[in-house]
Amino acid sequence: MGGTKCLGVALDADGGVTRTARVPTPATSGELVDALAGIVAELGPASSVGVGMPGLVTHRGGLVASAHLRAMAGLAVADALEPRIGMRPWVANDATCATAAEWRLGAARGCDDVVMVTLGTGIGGGVVTSGRLVTGRNGFAGEFGHMTVDPDGPPCPCGRRGCWERFASGTGLARLARDAAWGGGLRDVVASAGGDVQAVRGEHVQEAARAGDPDALAVVDEFARWVALGMANLTNALDPAAFVLGGGLAAGADLYLEPVRAWFARLLYATDLRPPPDIRVAALGERAGAVGAALLGEIRRSPGARGAPTPG
Amino acid sequence: MGGTKCLGVALDADGGVTRTARVPTPATSGELVDALAGIVAELGPASSVGVGMPGLVTHRGGLVASAHLRAMAGLAVADALEPRIGMRPWVANDATCATAAEWRLGAARGCDDVVMVTLGTGIGGGVVTSGRLVTGRNGFAGEFGHMTVDPDGPPCPCGRRGCWERFASGTGLARLARDAAWGGGLRDVVASAGGDVQAVRGEHVQEAARAGDPDALAVVDEFARWVALGMANLTNALDPAAFVLGGGLAAGADLYLEPVRAWFARLLYATDLRPPPDIRVAALGERAGAVGAALLGEIRRSPGARGAPTPG
Repeated sequence: MGGTKCLGVALDADGGVTRTARVPTPATSGELVDALAGIVAELGPASSVGVGMPGLVTHRGGLVASAHLRAMAGLAVADALEPRIGMRPWVANDATCATAAEWRLGAARGCDDVVMVTLGTGIGGGVVTSGRLVTGRNGFAGEFGHMTVDPDGPPCPCGRRGCWERFASGTGLARLARDAAWGGGLRDVVASAGGDVQAVRGEHVQEAARAGDPDALAVVDEFARWVALGMANLTNALDPAAFVLGGGLAAGADLYLEPVRAWFARLLYATDLRPPPDIRVAALGERAGAVGAALLGEIRRSPGARGAPTPG
Repeated sequence: MGGTKCLGVALDADGGVTRTARVPTPATSGELVDALAGIVAELGPASSVGVGMPGLVTHRGGLVASAHLRAMAGLAVADALEPRIGMRPWVANDATCATAAEWRLGAARGCDDVVMVTLGTGIGGGVVTSGRLVTGRNGFAGEFGHMTVDPDGPPCPCGRRGCWERFASGTGLARLARDAAWGGGLRDVVASAGGDVQAVRGEHVQEAARAGDPDALAVVDEFARWVALGMANLTNALDPAAFVLGGGLAAGADLYLEPVRAWFARLLYATDLRPPPDIRVAALGERAGAVGAALLGEIRRSPGARGAPTPG
C-alpha cells in the first residue's frame, strides 16, 4: 500500500510474480479493507497473504501512525482483513517488506547481514542480521530517517532537529539545493525551476548534474556525503555485509552511487581493518514492498523467526 | 581481558560464578596466550571456554585491532589458545560479551530485544534482536562510539569528527567539563582539580554534581543529553525493549540516569505511539565481560545461532 495506490502481487514458489492487481488507495479505513480484500480475491488462492504499509506497524498488524495514510491511523489491519479473506494476513511496514524482498530475491540475495535504506520523500529501511529479518520490540525497527545526524541542524516535522532525512532524502536533496541557491549558486537550476528558488526540487538538481553543471554536481556530492554518513553510523552499529539503496531516489543512483561510495570509504571507521560493506542499488523497483509482503508468511514461519502475529 | 588485567570466571549450569582467577595483562602476545591458558587451567575443567577482548574481534577469533592491547593486534587468539587448552575457545569483543551476560543473567534477563551501551573511556556495546546476539558480518557490530552525532563536532582519534564517544563517554564528560570551564564556569570543579582546567576529569564533575554544584549539574545534564541522543538514534534503528547502560560510568548512574531518561523521552521520535524502551543500569559490574565470555559457547550453540567460529 502506498499513499496513492495499492499494488498486489501473487508469487510462485520461486518468488516469481505470476499476477498483479492495482487499485487507487481509498480515502477511508473501511474502503481500504474493501480494497485489500478485493486485491486478494483478484489475485486468486494463496497459501499466505501479506500487507506492507507505510508508517509504524505493530507485530499484531495494526497501523499505529502513517504520514501517508493519516485517515487510517489506528486501523487494526490484520484484524479487519482476516474475516474478509479467510486467513490471518501478515502485516508489516513497507520498508521492512522491501528489505525482505531485496534480501530474499533482489540485490542482497544470499547475504545474511543486510541493511536496506529507502531514500524517498523521507528515509526508511530495514535490517537483516544473521539471516533474520529484524523487527524490534514493537515492529518499528528500521526507522532510520529520524536518527539525529546534526543536533543543530534544520528542524524536522517530527519536532526535533537534524534528522537524517532532512539531509539524505529526496526532500533533503531539494533543501540542500535551495540552500545553495539562496547563497547565489545553482543559477541554471534556479532558471530551470522558473527562476523561483523555492520551486527548486531534487529532479531539477539531478537533471542539471547529469548535464554536467558543476554547482549541481556539488549539491549531489553534499547529498552523497550525508547519505554516506548515516550509512557509516549504521555500519558501526550493525556491521552489515551489504547495503541496499532503494526508494524513489534509487532511480537516480547512477548519479550519486559513486559519490556515496567515495564518502562512505572516507567516513567509515577502521576501513583498513575490515572488508567494507557492498553498496548496491535495489533490484526490485516499485514492486519491492508488495513482493516482500507476499514473502512475509514464509519468512515468519521459518525456524527461529519471531515477532510476528501468529496466523489463525 | 582488559588493558591492565585478565579476569577469568567459571560458571555453573545456572550461570553462577563458582571460581575466579585474575592475572595482570602481559605485554606480549606470547605471554598473553600463556596467561589465558593459565587461567583456564586454574579454573578447572569446563564444557566450553570463551574469551572477551577489547577491540575488533573477528568471527574466527582473531584480534584485528585494539586500542588497549596494541601489541596484540593481529593475534589469532582462538588458533593460538586451542592447542593449549585442548578445545576451540569462543572469542568475541568484550562489550559483546558483556551484552550477552546482561541479557542472559543480568539487567536485561528475559528481554528479547536489547541494546547495551558501555560508557567508559570510549563507548562500546552490543545488540540482541529477537533473542539472538548480533555480531555482524565481521564480528564488529556494536561499535557505537564512532557513530557521528555532530559532523562539525570535535575531532576524534579515529580521524573523523563528532563521534558519539567524544560527547557521551567518560572522556566526553571531561571534555564537556573543560569546555564549560574555559567559558568561565565550573569554578569549584576547577579548584578541586588544583586550579588547572586541563586537569579536570569526569570524577571531579561527578563529585561536585553530587554536592549540588549547579555548574557541575549543568555539565551532567549536557552529558546526559548526548547519551540520550545516541540512544534515540539506536532506538529508531533497532526498536529495543530495553537499554542496559554499563561500563565504568555505570557506577555513577545515580547521577545521570534521571537526566538521561528525561532527555531520551524528549529526543525519541513518536514516544506517544510506542512503549519506550526501559533504561536500566548493568547488574553484573566489572565481571560482565568475563561472565559473557563464559556464556558464548552456550549462546553460539543454541538453535539458529550463527556467525561464530565452529569449535573443534
